[in-house]
Amino acid sequence: MTDAIRRHDPLVKGFASDNYAGVHPEILQALALANEGHQTAYGDDVYTEALQEIFRGHFGPEAVAWPMFNGTGANVVALRAMTAHWEAVVCADSAHIHTDEGGAPERSAGLKLLPVATPDGKLTPDLIDRQAWGFGDEHRAQPKVVSITQTTELGTLYTPAEIKAVCDHAHELGMVVHLDGSRATNAAAALDVPLRAFTTDVGVDVLSFGGTKAGLMFGEAVVVLNPDAVRGLRYLRKSSMQLASKMRFVSVQFEALLAGDLWLRNARNANAMAQRLAVAVRGIDGVEVPRPVQANAVFAILPRDVTERLQKRFRFYTWNEATGEVRWMTAFDTTEADVDAFAAALAEEMDSSA
Amino acid sequence: MTDAIRRHDPLVKGFASDNYAGVHPEILQALALANEGHQTAYGDDVYTEALQEIFRGHFGPEAVAWPMFNGTGANVVALRAMTAHWEAVVCADSAHIHTDEGGAPERSAGLKLLPVATPDGKLTPDLIDRQAWGFGDEHRAQPKVVSITQTTELGTLYTPAEIKAVCDHAHELGMVVHLDGSRATNAAAALDVPLRAFTTDVGVDVLSFGGTKAGLMFGEAVVVLNPDAVRGLRYLRKSSMQLASKMRFVSVQFEALLAGDLWLRNARNANAMAQRLAVAVRGIDGVEVPRPVQANAVFAILPRDVTERLQKRFRFYTWNEATGEVRWMTAFDTTEADVDAFAAALAEEMDSSA
Amino acid sequence: MTDAIRRHDPLVKGFASDNYAGVHPEILQALALANEGHQTAYGDDVYTEALQEIFRGHFGPEAVAWPMFNGTGANVVALRAMTAHWEAVVCADSAHIHTDEGGAPERSAGLKLLPVATPDGKLTPDLIDRQAWGFGDEHRAQPKVVSITQTTELGTLYTPAEIKAVCDHAHELGMVVHLDGSRATNAAAALDVPLRAFTTDVGVDVLSFGGTKAGLMFGEAVVVLNPDAVRGLRYLRKSSMQLASKMRFVSVQFEALLAGDLWLRNARNANAMAQRLAVAVRGIDGVEVPRPVQANAVFAILPRDVTERLQKRFRFYTWNEATGEVRWMTAFDTTEADVDAFAAALAEEMDSSA
Amino acid sequence: MTDAIRRHDPLVKGFASDNYAGVHPEILQALALANEGHQTAYGDDVYTEALQEIFRGHFGPEAVAWPMFNGTGANVVALRAMTAHWEAVVCADSAHIHTDEGGAPERSAGLKLLPVATPDGKLTPDLIDRQAWGFGDEHRAQPKVVSITQTTELGTLYTPAEIKAVCDHAHELGMVVHLDGSRATNAAAALDVPLRAFTTDVGVDVLSFGGTKAGLMFGEAVVVLNPDAVRGLRYLRKSSMQLASKMRFVSVQFEALLAGDLWLRNARNANAMAQRLAVAVRGIDGVEVPRPVQANAVFAILPRDVTERLQKRFRFYTWNEATGEVRWMTAFDTTEADVDAFAAALAEEMDSSA
Repeated sequence: MTDAIRRHDPLVKGFASDNYAGVHPEILQALALANEGHQTAYGDDVYTEALQEIFRGHFGPEAVAWPMFNGTGANVVALRAMTAHWEAVVCADSAHIHTDEGGAPERSAGLKLLPVATPDGKLTPDLIDRQAWGFGDEHRAQPKVVSITQTTELGTLYTPAEIKAVCDHAHELGMVVHLDGSRATNAAAALDVPLRAFTTDVGVDVLSFGGTKAGLMFGEAVVVLNPDAVRGLRYLRKSSMQLASKMRFVSVQFEALLAGDLWLRNARNANAMAQRLAVAVRGIDGVEVPRPVQANAVFAILPRDVTERLQKRFRFYTWNEATGEVRWMTAFDTTEADVDAFAAALAEEMDSSA
Repeated sequence: MTDAIRRHDPLVKGFASDNYAGVHPEILQALALANEGHQTAYGDDVYTEALQEIFRGHFGPEAVAWPMFNGTGANVVALRAMTAHWEAVVCADSAHIHTDEGGAPERSAGLKLLPVATPDGKLTPDLIDRQAWGFGDEHRAQPKVVSITQTTELGTLYTPAEIKAVCDHAHELGMVVHLDGSRATNAAAALDVPLRAFTTDVGVDVLSFGGTKAGLMFGEAVVVLNPDAVRGLRYLRKSSMQLASKMRFVSVQFEALLAGDLWLRNARNANAMAQRLAVAVRGIDGVEVPRPVQANAVFAILPRDVTERLQKRFRFYTWNEATGEVRWMTAFDTTEADVDAFAAALAEEMDSSA
Repeated sequence: MTDAIRRHDPLVKGFASDNYAGVHPEILQALALANEGHQTAYGDDVYTEALQEIFRGHFGPEAVAWPMFNGTGANVVALRAMTAHWEAVVCADSAHIHTDEGGAPERSAGLKLLPVATPDGKLTPDLIDRQAWGFGDEHRAQPKVVSITQTTELGTLYTPAEIKAVCDHAHELGMVVHLDGSRATNAAAALDVPLRAFTTDVGVDVLSFGGTKAGLMFGEAVVVLNPDAVRGLRYLRKSSMQLASKMRFVSVQFEALLAGDLWLRNARNANAMAQRLAVAVRGIDGVEVPRPVQANAVFAILPRDVTERLQKRFRFYTWNEATGEVRWMTAFDTTEADVDAFAAALAEEMDSSA
Repeated sequence: MTDAIRRHDPLVKGFASDNYAGVHPEILQALALANEGHQTAYGDDVYTEALQEIFRGHFGPEAVAWPMFNGTGANVVALRAMTAHWEAVVCADSAHIHTDEGGAPERSAGLKLLPVATPDGKLTPDLIDRQAWGFGDEHRAQPKVVSITQTTELGTLYTPAEIKAVCDHAHELGMVVHLDGSRATNAAAALDVPLRAFTTDVGVDVLSFGGTKAGLMFGEAVVVLNPDAVRGLRYLRKSSMQLASKMRFVSVQFEALLAGDLWLRNARNANAMAQRLAVAVRGIDGVEVPRPVQANAVFAILPRDVTERLQKRFRFYTWNEATGEVRWMTAFDTTEADVDAFAAALAEEMDSSA
């Protein structure tokens, strides 16, 4: 009997982030399955070995998966492996690597980011060109990687054709493409295509594949689709503090997620709940939904007093203090009842505001 | 039903490292307990909050615990928080931070290490003085931290008085002391003292407290004992890629380990199994045990052919190719039967060598 | 007799950059003056000591000057001394530190830059606010420094009042202000005010003061105006590879520049030649001068064929391939004859283009 | 007329370091020669171009020279260009890069050093093997470079055969060799061989070639002897803050030093003065000269009171407080009279001590 005690109410859910959710029960079962006995540490175990076949099934015969602890780590290791000391990364100025990782790319890896303003969080060949120049000039950090996020930080979605255009353009410039896929499963579900349709098949070179937001306890994977795009990944994972000793417990979670359709069930639920929420709130007078709802994020503009009162009842974040825009994320465990209760609460608060 | 499948034989154990073991069943239970519902991500959850009281119980009322993913991460974040850009770390040249972390301190944090040769992996005031000089001279990276490991990488143990001497000396020099305690529980069990007896009570400023080798699935904690010794830890954890989003699952494991006596039961078992193994192998003709067995490591010198044959039957590492020295680690889950079977196998292989 | 030989035509001058110029003769004399005999290396010499008084004369009694090799080095050392590991720098997206230093801030110092788009290369309180937020949130690199350039990379000039507004705003936010003054002397001359009028007197905390473009052979200085804004500068200069061993030869150059009015004569000449050039080219049909000419830079938009032919006769840079904008810089040694010859050549090439 | 004033007595010389000396008059002449008119900045000038032929004359047809500001910078740029993010540098624990550069390699370039204790500052194949292992193991920073110093920090000298043995061994291990040659000219003079005899001809891959201690005002050069040993040097020089804008003034100094025999005259004088000094002090009762005098350094063990009194008359450094060992360096401008006066002063102080 463990000495730990349950300290929280398992019925309480919110709309703050998909990583406020816990672990899918099938993942917990998988963790128990991999327990007991000894397995070689640091990735030389049978679960990590078996995982390769599973990733190849999703991403094609060249794919190699490198389990990591978290998304920041996966992004930093991937970008470091894709760049020499003097090379730089073009990204949207809303990219998580630029805005939300506490400067990890610069501080822990010396990476130079070249951010570009975008209307919707998405890069295009034209936008890339605003930073992809100065090749051969030592005064300019040499553009080498284009990093895009799918689904984006603004809840938007690239079509496979849009990503193909980015990749083709980058490759013409001698650059390579990284995709931050912390919500890649939501993208596949929303596009109703296999994971490879907007990665391997359109020219993405390296992927950070998210597990935590998809229902894992912890764990992301750098998936190398083009082996020529990276150097030294094995060493960089270690020196970037992302090498799990008991790696079997990362790998078996990914197996549980990806061997069957758990990834898709989880993503579809999250996306469907976002659509349900969008429909509900669009029906509430005075609430504006300013961005397209394409995956599992809903943005809305609310009166400040409504936000304040509603945040006392449900957890969620203000996205932009200036405009009153808020962000609501749905998760693999969000239910119709959760959405409906939240929408009802919003309607109430709007009423008492008016 | 999870799609993952059990791929390993849970009866197979070895003596390669304490992180080849899995997760203690009480820890697994605790993980399930913390699941379901939503909790604020990134450490603002009830489990992480409750954990502070538990750590204060072990380390005194000033202690603050910062959960991290792994030991390399805990060490790098702790040392970075203890140093300004121009300060350096004195350590044994056998220290894990110098030899086994792939250069993470230098590469990911720009840390300068000043290693000192030691006979047994332990620093003393005299040995510290070999590197702790040049204060105020800009040509010398300024010595600021003394980092010691307990138990050491060579299986040896500092007494509390020895650590006190190190701390007193460091403090006289205006330096602070970091203790790499990836096996701190083994040390407490071996010394038969509380955890604070060789940390808080003797002047250690900051501790990396190991969970993984003590029976957790993953998780270490930086424990700050002297708040004046650190700056910016909150930010450094994030920018060092060590901030878990679903942190409740790190914290609840530590609760399960430390709220009762699981930590002590696990450590005592590992230590007792090392003693049993030492007794057994000392009785085998031709096997030399060159170092004191003070916690859960046994070093032995074997004929090369014996090592080779024995490694086909049990996993363990050669420590020094030149001398034929090997290292055997015991874990929380090592049983008397495991030890006896291994000792019998060693005896057999020695026989067929002779 | 030296074995070196003169390999260039001393009469050839261009408009590419103020650092294409050589050394002012009075500076060369000063170098000879400081030669012979021995002086303590690394800055403990009589010239460096005497220099402090000279800098205090210009920047006030609190000013401390730290000679460096070059502008990139001065900027990196200053910014590193103004930030802890987790802090960040708000700058214009046209700032030299972001665009033209090969990623030195990120790669060599782990600095996180938060660039802001500006219409004219100048920051304002409102523009600063686009990046100066998220204080206390570990997911955001903590904004600590506002870095402005005077004169800017676009040839524009802040008034003292504009810099005061920037400083007041930064200080209210708990931030500090760095001024990249590689052309600070041109600014003082153009504004017709002392150097302290737009630095010390309006709240700038730390200054990179340029020598090379002002007529030195090499040498810049970090000038600390607010001692509370920096930590560890002595050590950071060394570990950033900017500590000259024979420092007397940097310091004596600054003495020659700043003890009398050489700095002002040089800057006034460069500025006047830019004005002369602007007047001349504005009189040439078809040439657009799209930016205000406020110091020693003139930007113009030319037909591509004219640029190509003119570059064969005089060295200068294309600023923007897309628009055909070119940049012309004048220097301390630019003469009226140089300007007139260049303007005549431009007129010729425009004629043969039309 | 310059506003600078002569502030020092040109007759005063000491024995503290060869960089306490000024600039050789032939170098000053060369600086004046390169002045006036415009030259392309950042190395695209005629002096830097011409310098290549001169370096090829000394180091062979493959040699490429990259002028830098100082020795720390040259070492950091060279080592960074020779390593990927995960590779490490084996060096003597007395190496300048480990002990005297303020942590620049680690802090500004993320370099991991693997120091080895040596009896005399010199590495051998056996000593290299103490750190050159663990290839392919991600837990170990991957040994890639062997860095040696010629002449060493202890005043000793490698023979060409000794360096060849180091290079052959390194190359067999798949490693490359860097030579820190801040006193390479002293070594060539002492060995009475061309510069290439202990560099190019015996397998050194990259060299930091010292100018400052050889009589320049400032300037060192990274000399690449094996182009396959480096990557990205052009970019790394810039991002390491070592790219001089008015580079003609670095290059023309090297031309003056190396086009004729100035380098050799300077080095021979310094070495001869060290020999004269050694002879003189060995004749003084009670003074021990504990290390071989092989180039321009003399180490001696003195009574503390003698050191104290003598340091009031001449500048020099205590090398080891514990043993009373002091270091005397001679320079290009040290005269027989300087040495004789110093020896006489030492004899006096020894007398009054006895």
